Amino acid sequence: MSTVWGSNIKITIFGESHSSAIGVVIDNLPAGVPLDIAEIQREMARRAPNGGEYSTPRQEADEVEIVSGYFNDKTTGTPLCGIIRNTNTKSSDYDVLKDVVRPGHSDFGYYHKSGGNNDYRGGGHSSGRLTAPLVFAGAVCKQMLRLKDVFIGSHISSISNIKDTKFDARVEGNMLENLTRQVFPLVNNAKFVAMDYLIKEARSEGDSVGGTIECAIVGVPAGVGEPFFESIESKIASLLFSVPAVKGVEFGKGYELAKMKGSEANDPFRCLGGRVFTATNNNGGILGGLSTGMPIIFDAAIKPTASIFKEQDTINVITGENVKLNLKGRHDSCIVVRAVPVIEAVAAIAMYDLLRYREDL
Amino acid sequence: MSTVWGSNIKITIFGESHSSAIGVVIDNLPAGVPLDIAEIQREMARRAPNGGEYSTPRQEADEVEIVSGYFNDKTTGTPLCGIIRNTNTKSSDYDVLKDVVRPGHSDFGYYHKSGGNNDYRGGGHSSGRLTAPLVFAGAVCKQMLRLKDVFIGSHISSISNIKDTKFDARVEGNMLENLTRQVFPLVNNAKFVAMDYLIKEARSEGDSVGGTIECAIVGVPAGVGEPFFESIESKIASLLFSVPAVKGVEFGKGYELAKMKGSEANDPFRCLGGRVFTATNNNGGILGGLSTGMPIIFDAAIKPTASIFKEQDTINVITGENVKLNLKGRHDSCIVVRAVPVIEAVAAIAMYDLLRYREDL
Amino acid sequence: MSTVWGSNIKITIFGESHSSAIGVVIDNLPAGVPLDIAEIQREMARRAPNGGEYSTPRQEADEVEIVSGYFNDKTTGTPLCGIIRNTNTKSSDYDVLKDVVRPGHSDFGYYHKSGGNNDYRGGGHSSGRLTAPLVFAGAVCKQMLRLKDVFIGSHISSISNIKDTKFDARVEGNMLENLTRQVFPLVNNAKFVAMDYLIKEARSEGDSVGGTIECAIVGVPAGVGEPFFESIESKIASLLFSVPAVKGVEFGKGYELAKMKGSEANDPFRCLGGRVFTATNNNGGILGGLSTGMPIIFDAAIKPTASIFKEQDTINVITGENVKLNLKGRHDSCIVVRAVPVIEAVAAIAMYDLLRYREDL
Amino acid sequence: MSTVWGSNIKITIFGESHSSAIGVVIDNLPAGVPLDIAEIQREMARRAPNGGEYSTPRQEADEVEIVSGYFNDKTTGTPLCGIIRNTNTKSSDYDVLKDVVRPGHSDFGYYHKSGGNNDYRGGGHSSGRLTAPLVFAGAVCKQMLRLKDVFIGSHISSISNIKDTKFDARVEGNMLENLTRQVFPLVNNAKFVAMDYLIKEARSEGDSVGGTIECAIVGVPAGVGEPFFESIESKIASLLFSVPAVKGVEFGKGYELAKMKGSEANDPFRCLGGRVFTATNNNGGILGGLSTGMPIIFDAAIKPTASIFKEQDTINVITGENVKLNLKGRHDSCIVVRAVPVIEAVAAIAMYDLLRYREDL
Repeated sequence: MSTVWGSNIKITIFGESHSSAIGVVIDNLPAGVPLDIAEIQREMARRAPNGGEYSTPRQEADEVEIVSGYFNDKTTGTPLCGIIRNTNTKSSDYDVLKDVVRPGHSDFGYYHKSGGNNDYRGGGHSSGRLTAPLVFAGAVCKQMLRLKDVFIGSHISSISNIKDTKFDARVEGNMLENLTRQVFPLVNNAKFVAMDYLIKEARSEGDSVGGTIECAIVGVPAGVGEPFFESIESKIASLLFSVPAVKGVEFGKGYELAKMKGSEANDPFRCLGGRVFTATNNNGGILGGLSTGMPIIFDAAIKPTASIFKEQDTINVITGENVKLNLKGRHDSCIVVRAVPVIEAVAAIAMYDLLRYREDL
Repeated sequence: MSTVWGSNIKITIFGESHSSAIGVVIDNLPAGVPLDIAEIQREMARRAPNGGEYSTPRQEADEVEIVSGYFNDKTTGTPLCGIIRNTNTKSSDYDVLKDVVRPGHSDFGYYHKSGGNNDYRGGGHSSGRLTAPLVFAGAVCKQMLRLKDVFIGSHISSISNIKDTKFDARVEGNMLENLTRQVFPLVNNAKFVAMDYLIKEARSEGDSVGGTIECAIVGVPAGVGEPFFESIESKIASLLFSVPAVKGVEFGKGYELAKMKGSEANDPFRCLGGRVFTATNNNGGILGGLSTGMPIIFDAAIKPTASIFKEQDTINVITGENVKLNLKGRHDSCIVVRAVPVIEAVAAIAMYDLLRYREDL
Repeated sequence: MSTVWGSNIKITIFGESHSSAIGVVIDNLPAGVPLDIAEIQREMARRAPNGGEYSTPRQEADEVEIVSGYFNDKTTGTPLCGIIRNTNTKSSDYDVLKDVVRPGHSDFGYYHKSGGNNDYRGGGHSSGRLTAPLVFAGAVCKQMLRLKDVFIGSHISSISNIKDTKFDARVEGNMLENLTRQVFPLVNNAKFVAMDYLIKEARSEGDSVGGTIECAIVGVPAGVGEPFFESIESKIASLLFSVPAVKGVEFGKGYELAKMKGSEANDPFRCLGGRVFTATNNNGGILGGLSTGMPIIFDAAIKPTASIFKEQDTINVITGENVKLNLKGRHDSCIVVRAVPVIEAVAAIAMYDLLRYREDL
Repeated sequence: MSTVWGSNIKITIFGESHSSAIGVVIDNLPAGVPLDIAEIQREMARRAPNGGEYSTPRQEADEVEIVSGYFNDKTTGTPLCGIIRNTNTKSSDYDVLKDVVRPGHSDFGYYHKSGGNNDYRGGGHSSGRLTAPLVFAGAVCKQMLRLKDVFIGSHISSISNIKDTKFDARVEGNMLENLTRQVFPLVNNAKFVAMDYLIKEARSEGDSVGGTIECAIVGVPAGVGEPFFESIESKIASLLFSVPAVKGVEFGKGYELAKMKGSEANDPFRCLGGRVFTATNNNGGILGGLSTGMPIIFDAAIKPTASIFKEQDTINVITGENVKLNLKGRHDSCIVVRAVPVIEAVAAIAMYDLLRYREDL
């Protein structure tokens, strides 16, 4: 297992869906920074299961106890550890999973990896629940980034085959921050009705739908990134692909770029009034792994929730028999909505790791 | 900068396009393994600029001198260092780039990152030339993986808007190895004519085209991967996005998955004659960051070569003036062909890093 | 700050002397190993402040709550997080330390490092209290090492100028395990009276004494260690010197070796009945950073407790005035006794990190 | 193997005593710094085998070829790779070592570690020759440190039982720099005759002697160091103990501290004319892993050269027979003299890694 991430800061996460607690240690934060605890808790609430329209019925307040690294309302520079208790666990729902692996989930892999010693309840360590500590760490990093005038926000760029309008190449910070205040963030709110319908239809069928999330980071000056192996893309993608449901990532125009000619794809540099920019932003603010000063834009594909209530074919890993599975438990019919703050969180963690020692911002 | 990568093995690369040499150090290889040097050189030749149809006219033999870690025709377990001399450099072609940054390249970012002290000749450290040491490291890792019956191969899944047939969910090792013997690897060779035409058309226009590469890894047993942060997807993606031209990555059906319902996306586990498999492989052999035992399949989007011979708008970074740029130098009109062994190499490095200590294979 | 350690396992510690809790996350343990929880708690008790003869009057049960990575009485292979609540804190004792730095302590350094934002209560993050999570991690590693027949034990090799007999070159595991059952472990128990007298004399004077601890690790086969930078000596020393009171470390004969001739220092290899050994063990079982198969022996110098009750000269860091300091609080007059399990713990962590993937043991 | 070191910079070394070359890659240096190449070469010459009085007869110019990361006489910020060719190798001297392991050397360990696949010629990767790349990296780091007014120097604090005077608690930078200009650096030059005699006597006997080296670092402000695990002591010691001959390390008064009372050991803080200092410096400028602003002082014990020309008992690892060994080859009768620049180099690397991002110096 590898649950430590980062170069300049280090994030260590721990916990399982049904262990007594989950949490995260953030190492090497600067000292003397007051944290807006209410704002952190607001980020937690965006992701928390609350029994709402787009959420599993499991209810968790997801209040974070900061047990270290914080004194007199400021960071001390020592490791900040946040712990979240698991309270609303219904482990009995998962008894069947001792033997029967869920399609679309990591149960089969963990069974083999651990020699049958994995905590199968609720998906254990690979549960979406482990994204809660990430959101906490991301909320802290977002506050550190704001001190450097770097802002992050995102929208649901699609649910199934319904697409939202993409970010403008020059998307700005206040628009992004506004999006973080919305339950169902969209650039074009007219798309809500159709997306909402698809999600509820899937739920009524005991099925699920996926979608995509587009995220932007603004305020990063030119020249940030640590090639060869810590390009901005590498840092962000390595965290995005740690989130179990993410199966695709694009920077800038992504796959569309592969269809363009060089003369179309290249973003011409321009200078106006002493300010350098690119006339287009096909490359998503990143060239050769380094920022250009334009908004950093990426998109992540989220697969449909693997837990569905339709009968599925699978196997009993102990006996090797082919069996039918009818899942119990509490699940989201579309995790894209609750994944939005997670995607922003990993963007914040990745970006802050790259900017930690940039004093020229 | 961050030019060291890996957890169980460590890859350190160095060099610039026009420095005296480029190279790589591979740390923590096992001792006592004979390397097939001819096979390594064959991999180098796949990527090397050779003045051929799909290559820049710059000619480099890209012969690797192994300077350490190899004794009596076997690895010693100490760091294996391979050095490649830069011979065919025409630095004068790049004099204009002291001041004028190329659109689509990292020149602007490096100028700011280094305070104007970057080696601008040929793109310096961010040149595609730095993928040569990666191919060497990948060739070594491929040989280590073969000892564990793990095989890697890939094909050009598209050039611009012309698509090749995708890999079958159960693609096999010998087909993959055969693909590595082809100059222009395709699943459906009937697509060659149209692709070839697009590339040559772009060249004749002084322009360039992009494409995509699909890669498969077979023979990885179930349960490999190191979540949370070293999921198979994270490891492979972090290396893929270090390659400057890669702007999108998908695992399995990738973005298509986001449009499916859970009941379609979930790959049902089945058992037949004691062998477990999934009836479909939409998830590309990876669930929750862990292998399922099915072929691991991913795809990478390669943007069109940024260096084109059409006049482009850009700026002089010293004076801040808007200027026109007419590039000299030697460039590929489509780097996708030479990128194929690079994509395989990073897949091999990532996978071997995850499998280094698996003795049960 | 840097509170993550390890290559094959990763240890992340957090907490301050007076924060709500301290703890540790241990990443990449094998799955399926039952832990002897009572044995872990016994190790915790060896270090815990218990108001006993050789301890501060502060009383802490130091019971560890394992919050993750443990299921059905076995490790799951996911991060094992242990949390220890701080209960018996008397923060008011430390109010004076807001401004006045204690000689021999890190207060002055932390004041500058954190810009005055450090948690000064009880030494904050640099308190000896942070060795409690280390002892927990060490207790876990000791159990993992026992599965490979590797045993660790130590004795108080000196208190002030009173020396215990050194370990025999061929010290054995059962002797070492017996030593871990003693409150005041000595090879020659006749030395106890004089050592005990010195400690009590220092306490009665409001002063403190230091000493040394010799530790042995037996059962490590030849060829373990990861030069160049992860020699056995480097791994052990890097952890030993993280413990704030350690100011010197020797392997084998250490400084005595520097006075020998090569013909005396070299340990001759011998073979008897198929078993290879060295006739002497001046090098402490390590040559060129690798184990020889002989007992690994090292010694650590522990400075006298910095907290004393004699009046001391120091400064007020805010005003820059020279002042007199009369410490309150609760302190050990000799921390050597309670440091014994800490030294063993870091030896266990370092050694297990090196042996994690050795399946040939 | 583990041949990558560092947190903020990364050092990767490679090579064997008789491989075609040895070298080092230094990652994450700042861009735009001119290096004094002559000064680097002077440091190389201090360590190089030159056939002189205190050196093996093997002669190596140890000229470093900088192959990357340096352009227009300045660092570019990309990895600086320095390569040193091995020229004066007499591999035939080592044929006997295929089977017969040298006492005091790592041959036996490497034989087991590599399954008999190690490069036994001249000690392979564990040869003292691998300290040449360290000296190069250290020379670069020394120049970076000088930009921050940090200076490093050392003296031979003992040869066998003859001791030099120790550094004054307030040793200054110019004295340290002067010491680096001496072939046989001593605080009290009157000790030279006796030391020189011991070395030459040992040589005439075919034997060897050891000694100790005391090193000081001045100019480091208070609050530098990264506890818990990257205390200044941990960083320096982890590198020191990578050097095969180092068997003991002390910071400040080291083992003497363990014999003091707290009231003697604690260094009282004083303030005079706005400048804070400690009246004594028993703790070697480090408390709790952090600098106090006083000179950082440490000492390393170097064992006598393991290669001697007296007949020794050892074994044949293939047959298991007890045999007599009469070494050929070229060896120093006292490596302490040539180890001086190595000790300084690792101090410089460790210190620069800690100071890399300190812009307030």
